[in-house]
Amino acid sequence: MNRLKSTVAVVVMALSTTLLAQTHQIPVPTTVSKPMAAAVAAPVADLWLKAPKSVSDWQAIASEYADTVGRSALSDAKALNVDVQATKIASVNVYVLTPKTIDQDKADKIIFYIHGGGYILGHGASGIVEALPMAADHHYKVVCVDYRMAPEFPFPAAIDDAFAVYQELVKTHGADNIAVMGTSTGGAMTLILALQAHDAKVPMPAALISGTPWSDMDKIGDSYFVNDGVDNVLGSYDGLIKTAVEYYAKGHDLKDPLLSPVYASDDALQAFPPTLLISGTRDLFLSNTVRMHTRLLLNKAPAELIVHEALSHAQYYFVTDAPETENHYRLLDDFLDRVWVRKPQK
Amino acid sequence: MNRLKSTVAVVVMALSTTLLAQTHQIPVPTTVSKPMAAAVAAPVADLWLKAPKSVSDWQAIASEYADTVGRSALSDAKALNVDVQATKIASVNVYVLTPKTIDQDKADKIIFYIHGGGYILGHGASGIVEALPMAADHHYKVVCVDYRMAPEFPFPAAIDDAFAVYQELVKTHGADNIAVMGTSTGGAMTLILALQAHDAKVPMPAALISGTPWSDMDKIGDSYFVNDGVDNVLGSYDGLIKTAVEYYAKGHDLKDPLLSPVYASDDALQAFPPTLLISGTRDLFLSNTVRMHTRLLLNKAPAELIVHEALSHAQYYFVTDAPETENHYRLLDDFLDRVWVRKPQK
Repeated sequence: MNRLKSTVAVVVMALSTTLLAQTHQIPVPTTVSKPMAAAVAAPVADLWLKAPKSVSDWQAIASEYADTVGRSALSDAKALNVDVQATKIASVNVYVLTPKTIDQDKADKIIFYIHGGGYILGHGASGIVEALPMAADHHYKVVCVDYRMAPEFPFPAAIDDAFAVYQELVKTHGADNIAVMGTSTGGAMTLILALQAHDAKVPMPAALISGTPWSDMDKIGDSYFVNDGVDNVLGSYDGLIKTAVEYYAKGHDLKDPLLSPVYASDDALQAFPPTLLISGTRDLFLSNTVRMHTRLLLNKAPAELIVHEALSHAQYYFVTDAPETENHYRLLDDFLDRVWVRKPQK
Repeated sequence: MNRLKSTVAVVVMALSTTLLAQTHQIPVPTTVSKPMAAAVAAPVADLWLKAPKSVSDWQAIASEYADTVGRSALSDAKALNVDVQATKIASVNVYVLTPKTIDQDKADKIIFYIHGGGYILGHGASGIVEALPMAADHHYKVVCVDYRMAPEFPFPAAIDDAFAVYQELVKTHGADNIAVMGTSTGGAMTLILALQAHDAKVPMPAALISGTPWSDMDKIGDSYFVNDGVDNVLGSYDGLIKTAVEYYAKGHDLKDPLLSPVYASDDALQAFPPTLLISGTRDLFLSNTVRMHTRLLLNKAPAELIVHEALSHAQYYFVTDAPETENHYRLLDDFLDRVWVRKPQK
């Protein structure tokens, strides 16, 4: 991905102005690369601080985001020689990403990718950004689900769509050949999919990659407070995140594990496949990530954790010219190698 | 350990007053138990904020700490039915902890424990506190090294002592039966011991447990700044920690991996055995921990990471009446089980 400019980062930053009063002045980290330091030092993006006044107000924001980011994603895919096919699986819209070459030991494998965006953002091709390097640089075939979102389609439309596609992929590819992956809301949906599979007695995927999962939809978790205003991607819970909860959960109990998977039963967690969780030291969702990881470990699930130095929420994937980003994807590929090539005992 | 009162926590807190102006008001976390929340909400301990005016000034503080904490540790050991023998191995002072019963599958195993304390604190029996539950609750035999410390004995006296004991234990027990464990300075010394072994072509231990290691002795790493005043155990780099660097390193290049193991060579890191790193989301050494973990992973070393929700530096081991503490030790035992019982491929 080094050859691409930080298109997405630029798009996200263009929507930004400084809104937060910084109460906790901290210097630019010296332990990350220059491009990453620039991203870390940028003002808090105002995208996630918005609280739209009405549904139509919101639809305008979401649709502008989908158009701008979606266009750049498709153009990136072309430059990276990744074929993108929009199609349907189980009547749900998906994008199938196929790299020019697929490694022989990955030929029968597939990544099922679930995008993030608070259940309200990431429509269409804007939802394939994080998945692209898995196809382009790591030569995996990736199926990205373009699930229905709030406010039009509240809970459980999104997770029903993702699970419907997964069940079909199990039939066509076999659960052992599927890794499920996503970040933020997509990270939570990755975990929720495993809960749905456990409940429905559908075979578990071979692995889960759950990046900084929104595992507690309520404002519960220490980093929601400690990293408020420190995380320069999300900024604060008390903006768009809160709106997203209202739009999607619609009063449903936020302790339902299908909304907040950190409250999953011990029984379900004990059935989890190898699961990699990822966060950053400045991440507003650091607690969401480590609380989930600890619950899995205490249930003896084969769970792994990576915390990226100095990074805010999901910053590991959209600063495309930073070596940290390349390293991040390499660690994901290494994890899948451990799962599929070495097949360790659970 | 539930049956013991938080003796150590009480001792540490008795030395405390609020010194830091809180610039970043954060609420007491609701995601930890009551005893742990009380520890997290306590004012910053002033022990680590002291900057002694002279060596003799310091010696009084260190000796009071050693006496008070050492006495309570020996009394705890007695209550826990752990036999404590002060002896010498390779002419170095050690304490050998033997639990009343040893599990059969642990009979030939040993934990080599290296205490923390900035190379200036933790003399005598005060250095066995963290090791006790590994003997009492998890039935391991533990050898604790009472290495020489600064200001009397600067670098490399401490690491030379630890390595001398390790080499002798390799002869008597075999490297495959030894796990090395420590927190903070002891976490760094655990990593440094592996570097020494690699350099000297001495066999690597079976596993390393490196709790919140002081992997960068210089004030380099994002959490030294972000968690300044948030971590209520250490408070800030700019107190006793800085003094400890002066006393121990004495002008030696802090980028030397034998002082700051985060700068170890790729070659050395590739030779690491299974390594568990541990930190907390409020830890001043969070960056020290995750930087080390990422370097190991990028060198394909079998490194694992646990980050405890809401905890400050090393807070996972001295709040003895908190369920989080019991869970923490259980996860260490699980890790050693994975290493020794399941013997996964590297």
